[in-house]
Amino acid sequence: MQKLSPLFRRNHLFKLLASFGKRYLSLTSETYPEVKRSPNFKKLTKQDITFFQSLLSKQEIIQATPTDSLTTYNEDWMKKYKGNSQLVLKPKTVPQISEILKYCQKEKLAVVPQGGNTGLVGGSIPIFDEIILSLSNLNKIRSFDLVSGILKCDAGLVLESASDFVSEYDYLVPLDLGAKGSCQMGGVVATNAGGLRLLKYGSLHGSVLGLEVVLADGRILNSLDAARKDNTGYDWKQLFIGSEGTLGIITAVSILTVPKPKCNNVAFLAVNEFKDVLKVFKRAKMELNEILSAFEFMDNKSQVLTQEYLSKDIAFPLEGNEYPFYILIETSGSNKEHDDSKLETFLENVISDELVVDGTMAQDESELQNLWNWREMIPESTQLNGGVYKYDVSLPLEHLYSLVEATNTRLADAGLMNTKNMFDSTKPVLSAVGFGHIGDGNLHLNVSVRNYDKNIEKVLEPFVYEYVSSKKGSISAEHGLGFQKKIIFHIQKARKNKNLKGFQSLF
Amino acid sequence: MQKLSPLFRRNHLFKLLASFGKRYLSLTSETYPEVKRSPNFKKLTKQDITFFQSLLSKQEIIQATPTDSLTTYNEDWMKKYKGNSQLVLKPKTVPQISEILKYCQKEKLAVVPQGGNTGLVGGSIPIFDEIILSLSNLNKIRSFDLVSGILKCDAGLVLESASDFVSEYDYLVPLDLGAKGSCQMGGVVATNAGGLRLLKYGSLHGSVLGLEVVLADGRILNSLDAARKDNTGYDWKQLFIGSEGTLGIITAVSILTVPKPKCNNVAFLAVNEFKDVLKVFKRAKMELNEILSAFEFMDNKSQVLTQEYLSKDIAFPLEGNEYPFYILIETSGSNKEHDDSKLETFLENVISDELVVDGTMAQDESELQNLWNWREMIPESTQLNGGVYKYDVSLPLEHLYSLVEATNTRLADAGLMNTKNMFDSTKPVLSAVGFGHIGDGNLHLNVSVRNYDKNIEKVLEPFVYEYVSSKKGSISAEHGLGFQKKIIFHIQKARKNKNLKGFQSLF
Repeated sequence: MQKLSPLFRRNHLFKLLASFGKRYLSLTSETYPEVKRSPNFKKLTKQDITFFQSLLSKQEIIQATPTDSLTTYNEDWMKKYKGNSQLVLKPKTVPQISEILKYCQKEKLAVVPQGGNTGLVGGSIPIFDEIILSLSNLNKIRSFDLVSGILKCDAGLVLESASDFVSEYDYLVPLDLGAKGSCQMGGVVATNAGGLRLLKYGSLHGSVLGLEVVLADGRILNSLDAARKDNTGYDWKQLFIGSEGTLGIITAVSILTVPKPKCNNVAFLAVNEFKDVLKVFKRAKMELNEILSAFEFMDNKSQVLTQEYLSKDIAFPLEGNEYPFYILIETSGSNKEHDDSKLETFLENVISDELVVDGTMAQDESELQNLWNWREMIPESTQLNGGVYKYDVSLPLEHLYSLVEATNTRLADAGLMNTKNMFDSTKPVLSAVGFGHIGDGNLHLNVSVRNYDKNIEKVLEPFVYEYVSSKKGSISAEHGLGFQKKIIFHIQKARKNKNLKGFQSLF
Repeated sequence: MQKLSPLFRRNHLFKLLASFGKRYLSLTSETYPEVKRSPNFKKLTKQDITFFQSLLSKQEIIQATPTDSLTTYNEDWMKKYKGNSQLVLKPKTVPQISEILKYCQKEKLAVVPQGGNTGLVGGSIPIFDEIILSLSNLNKIRSFDLVSGILKCDAGLVLESASDFVSEYDYLVPLDLGAKGSCQMGGVVATNAGGLRLLKYGSLHGSVLGLEVVLADGRILNSLDAARKDNTGYDWKQLFIGSEGTLGIITAVSILTVPKPKCNNVAFLAVNEFKDVLKVFKRAKMELNEILSAFEFMDNKSQVLTQEYLSKDIAFPLEGNEYPFYILIETSGSNKEHDDSKLETFLENVISDELVVDGTMAQDESELQNLWNWREMIPESTQLNGGVYKYDVSLPLEHLYSLVEATNTRLADAGLMNTKNMFDSTKPVLSAVGFGHIGDGNLHLNVSVRNYDKNIEKVLEPFVYEYVSSKKGSISAEHGLGFQKKIIFHIQKARKNKNLKGFQSLF
């Protein structure tokens, strides 16, 4: 197997992003004319700028100019949403944030907090002319306890920087995302990010111990000193986890890091039916037990698209063969010999039981990275031909893959897709593909298209959301609501909380 | 090592409880005359009883009589709190609970929800004449998914019954408590119980996936169908975890169970200094890593008291020797050979580094149970001589044991304790002892006394709470606030949330 360096991957990603950059992106307010700016918010004035200048240094204030429309801040990386903010504030301290919010509330200026801007649902992008409050300059480690593993850090610290820091002391941040090089600690908490390690380490609701938050009126709440166990009253910080900046701006996080595993193994397997994916998952949970750290599945078409993207550089792990479904299993433990023995025994068992029909196991660290690429590069691969509609849903496991099949049937019925040849350039849709963290019941449905088109969108939505809702799933497993799902949010909640009317108004 | 059966333990506990039963327990309202019944609540009338009779069967309504003061429901098992409720309701269905609460709100009747009544802070006991709403009859398993491990059950299901049920399918409820034979699933969630497995499986904020809750006005909220990952809006169920029944009554729980380990090991170790306890803990986290499932410490006096209680039946693991501190380490994994090898290597390392000075390792399941007894029987042992004041606090690890030392100094200075001989019967206090889940920064401070006495209480409180607060700890790590800590709650919160005034009023 050839090697694929992290540098290669980053370069590929940048090339891809650059190609999108050339495409014209219309303002969100033009794309969605039905969404109206609230007249309750004031327009930014010179007096406002003067106030911010009294509070922040020159470098901490970025204003739009005729030649600089603040693209980096006004657009998301997928090039789906584009705001028209005229002002970016990048405070370095929490008191500054408090003063900014207090002022903006008084002056009725709309604000959107922005972390690493790596979100997938347009949650960190202004819709109109909101002031962008970037957390990027608030990025220090506050403390790290070597015995307990508790890390306290500013919200703007990049996840990878936090990981690298605790790694020096043999600890691990219990969260890993494709976006780790850009996403920020405050952002991952505000969006309750899931990612690759959730199967083993659980959700942020368990690992975040405390938060520092600035409310819209400037008040600062602080539970950073909270112990791992603290049963004194309502656990208010939980409400901010996943609140996407709507309740306040997270300015610092206390998180429990975990002892770093000493060895990782990865196996890439093929199975013939989706129900076998579930059987292998159950067996892996029971047999690999404490060392199972990831269980990802990918359908065939997701891999065909990824091969189109990667195969000039590295060979497909099961080259020359094609199977309906693939599984990536990762183990993490403290003793390589023990882990190898457990994984080999497990693989022998599932192969001899004819559940797994083909597979390969990484022999060294670079092979391990290469195997992960076939999972991690799916998001980029599906948008390589023009664009991608992304849905991130939770479904009961027995219904998990049926959504992909139903979506493909619907797209074909609408004449938008050639089911026999996804590279038929006369059709606007290549295919809907499915992959995801099966351990969490989480499916990523990506619809790969040649260009974004309202007609495709109408076939997909609200169909996808209604389908998920009818199977008692969630329309946002880990990406959040953001702008994308705000409009269709009522579908899910209406079903879930029939009696919640009065309760919702509490928030 | 002799064997100590679970039956033995249970019998001992019952003997102990029976001996307390004979003691006269005054009403909480007499013990704390400063706590007044709110005039806003109505007294129970015949019309109310008639309403409840229209809703529930005869067996589901228990009224006090001249010969039956409902002791089982009006008193806690520690015999510290005693209410004067005249009525216990034991509904079998959620709609009945909804109707009861709707009626009680309309009629201004106070209600206290009660689960297994195993709490330690008087939270499930009426203070005056509140109606007791017992969840005991709502005790069915609703569903169990063999692939995901998601268990949905009624709130009144006993923890041990839930454990036994999922155990049949090789799963484990990620929570274990001494009270498991009586405490109920709704109760453990409402109090955010911690217990012995928290180190490995994390808190209930991570493992509870959904709740069904009846609000005070009878409305039913339901998120039982929530997926493991669901990022669509505020995670309202989190507020009910640890709310101790103040926001609503939990009627059902959806919880993620975990694959059951196939083997457990236990080692019982001795160290000379508290700082060595911390060093051994750090080493255990790093070296035992994924198989470390419990790390408990116990001071010498806790073991002297436990020997007084247990030594007629079983020998102390390190018989004939006495050390300042003891450690119990448990590992859980899927391969006995691998786990034995990891634990043996670890023990060799910490012994050769002169951190651990003595120790023993269980050779079979009954030895393992015996070793656990020396930790689990401390609570009973410390109240054997008359009574015990219990404090359950979180403290930064470096300050964890200093609280025990400071408390002993204070008790001795007040002339209440003989520091040289804890069995000096002329002194009302035997000793303050410390033990707990060090992995969570959680210390149980038990002050063993010959009888409950306001003078002792005055020396201990608010001293203990203020000490904890000054070290940025929590005055309730896992037991909750209940009645006991409600009064002193402001000490901690005042320090923590200086700017929270307005925010608190939201709740």
